[in-house]
Amino acid sequence: MDYRAESLKKHGEWRGKIETKVRVPVCSREDLSLAYTPGVAEPCMAIHEDVEKSFDLTRRWNTVPVITDGTAVLGLGNIGPEAGMPVMEGKCALFKEFGDVDAFPICIGSRDTEDIIKTIKLIAGSFGGINLEDISAPRCFEIETRLKQELDIPVFHDDQHGTAIVTAAALLNALKLADKKIDQIKVVINGPGSAGIAIAKFLLAFGVKDIKMCGPNGLLCDGDNIENPAKREIAKLTNLSKMHGTLADGLKGADVLIGVSVANCVTKEMVASMAEKSIVFVCANPVPEINPDDAKEAGAYIVGTGSSEYANQINNVLVFPGLFRGALDVRANTVNLEMMMAAARGIASCVSDSELSREYILPKAWDKRAHEAVAKAVAEAAINTGVSKLYKK
Amino acid sequence: MDYRAESLKKHGEWRGKIETKVRVPVCSREDLSLAYTPGVAEPCMAIHEDVEKSFDLTRRWNTVPVITDGTAVLGLGNIGPEAGMPVMEGKCALFKEFGDVDAFPICIGSRDTEDIIKTIKLIAGSFGGINLEDISAPRCFEIETRLKQELDIPVFHDDQHGTAIVTAAALLNALKLADKKIDQIKVVINGPGSAGIAIAKFLLAFGVKDIKMCGPNGLLCDGDNIENPAKREIAKLTNLSKMHGTLADGLKGADVLIGVSVANCVTKEMVASMAEKSIVFVCANPVPEINPDDAKEAGAYIVGTGSSEYANQINNVLVFPGLFRGALDVRANTVNLEMMMAAARGIASCVSDSELSREYILPKAWDKRAHEAVAKAVAEAAINTGVSKLYKK
Repeated sequence: MDYRAESLKKHGEWRGKIETKVRVPVCSREDLSLAYTPGVAEPCMAIHEDVEKSFDLTRRWNTVPVITDGTAVLGLGNIGPEAGMPVMEGKCALFKEFGDVDAFPICIGSRDTEDIIKTIKLIAGSFGGINLEDISAPRCFEIETRLKQELDIPVFHDDQHGTAIVTAAALLNALKLADKKIDQIKVVINGPGSAGIAIAKFLLAFGVKDIKMCGPNGLLCDGDNIENPAKREIAKLTNLSKMHGTLADGLKGADVLIGVSVANCVTKEMVASMAEKSIVFVCANPVPEINPDDAKEAGAYIVGTGSSEYANQINNVLVFPGLFRGALDVRANTVNLEMMMAAARGIASCVSDSELSREYILPKAWDKRAHEAVAKAVAEAAINTGVSKLYKK
Repeated sequence: MDYRAESLKKHGEWRGKIETKVRVPVCSREDLSLAYTPGVAEPCMAIHEDVEKSFDLTRRWNTVPVITDGTAVLGLGNIGPEAGMPVMEGKCALFKEFGDVDAFPICIGSRDTEDIIKTIKLIAGSFGGINLEDISAPRCFEIETRLKQELDIPVFHDDQHGTAIVTAAALLNALKLADKKIDQIKVVINGPGSAGIAIAKFLLAFGVKDIKMCGPNGLLCDGDNIENPAKREIAKLTNLSKMHGTLADGLKGADVLIGVSVANCVTKEMVASMAEKSIVFVCANPVPEINPDDAKEAGAYIVGTGSSEYANQINNVLVFPGLFRGALDVRANTVNLEMMMAAARGIASCVSDSELSREYILPKAWDKRAHEAVAKAVAEAAINTGVSKLYKK
């Protein structure tokens, strides 16, 4: 099927993928007196006296905006805030369907970092958490960091961390099959954008020792003249042998390739040069870095992509609904590393040893068990790290 | 029933009066490919090429935020943005129930006029219209005026115009019963806040010639030393005889009293001093300016209040759902005076001559016919005044 043409047609018929639903009766004088004036004055005053009660007396506890400035929408680039809305709405539908989170799309008509931070801070009192989406690097780093510092609700940039979490989950299960230890593998990440950098940091946390980042000009190497501060920082943490060279050079003998870059930039020769039982995640969307069949022919042991058209889709839909469900349930005041690691392990754990195969390393995005497992793992991690406002360890 | 205590209890049980509802299937690989990636890229690009398509391909066409800064919530005053949320959520439920408008509550954590204007402008691309709520005077005037100038979607401050519209509707029907002509009546408006000023301007548009505004220091009079610019402006348009004096002085011989002020500030003597067949709308909430029974004993012919506990509730719930329904249906680029006048006439028309009585001058807030009548009248007025982006006259 031509999904893009069909999707355009469907969007024209749907005229919106979410709507508001009324949860209380408002059809009589008495109803109105309770849900609205005069009765509503009382919950208002209760929140006035203790603002935390806004989580008990309104929908705040379950509400998350999906916020973009439209600068990095899918692989389409900077298409503008309104043009990002179909993606944000879709995400909101997935939030509700898989996490029972009431999500709401908001596009911000500015690309200015301070404007975006201030706008989100000013509306944050309406929400239980903040999901940032499709904001281009390097502004997304500053925006997320500052909001995490200045707000006491979970803030999560899905393009960075959702991708990192699901990639790590896929890697954990792939390593089981390949019988390799995480602290002994050599990983090459092609594409040092926000997703690639987040994946690198996240895999370091999981104990990977040898990561090389590769950009359009070759392997990132500390000490080289790197203009972008985020890339400069990740160069310090990776490529400890300070190898210079191309992607092809980096891949020789590597156990894992993670591509979050552009279509068709990986050759069969490169894959063939990797170590035995190589793991190749080529997540460029919609066309991967190398065709999965070609990668297998070249000797890749396990192949995953970002697309639903092949086996092993590495899809961050597996992450955000459950992650926010868990964080909201325990009223976490942040999303920390431990919660994200728990999410990755939670996803991985949904594929039992008997199910696990080279063609099935991750649960399907619409597998509700996976979202429940993520929610549970994230909630427990929040409690265990002391960031739950509701429950103590 | 003690509505306030019961309402607090209910709010704790409800934990939110609205939620998100998913309108499209998202439960299989194919569903996700259409509602989300990769298909969603196509509606995104269509909007990128023509931003107006955001009204066709997303829920924007039907979505309105109910926005407050929490500075003038009900009669509770400046209780803070989060504390205003129960009212905003209630309003959103009414928007959906009576107008099928997908409304969403947003509280802004700043009282600075420029902050509020900028925040709303930056998120306006997500919405088909903007409903401002419970923002204190005089900032509400500047905020509404500027947003109307700078946005090409309907912007409506309900506390001003919703109140003015429903009050005018009530007056139109009351004058029928009292057999008085609108251009010959003497009106006193007590309470020169945002609602009172909006009512005065709106009644002038309906042809009322003789309006006196009264504040805590007596009748407003052009030429006096009036600090507040909004009051100074309305003083120029009213009290043309430049009468000085108290509320009691102003009410002698008046045909209509409209109170949007505080509890129990009107006496039976004042009402008794009014003209034959006097009309007394005492809308202070929750306790009116004078008890309706006392007003009747003192000779008032028709009495209305803001409360559901008496006959003739003058409730702006009758206005906003239908007004936005009509404006959104024809994709109006503003809410103009003609649309608001049509809304008032639409509400009034829902009480037939045979139904009309001193105890029944307005339809009930939960009467769906009334909301439909408002929507139809507003849509027609938008088309007739050339502000519909979809239909030409």
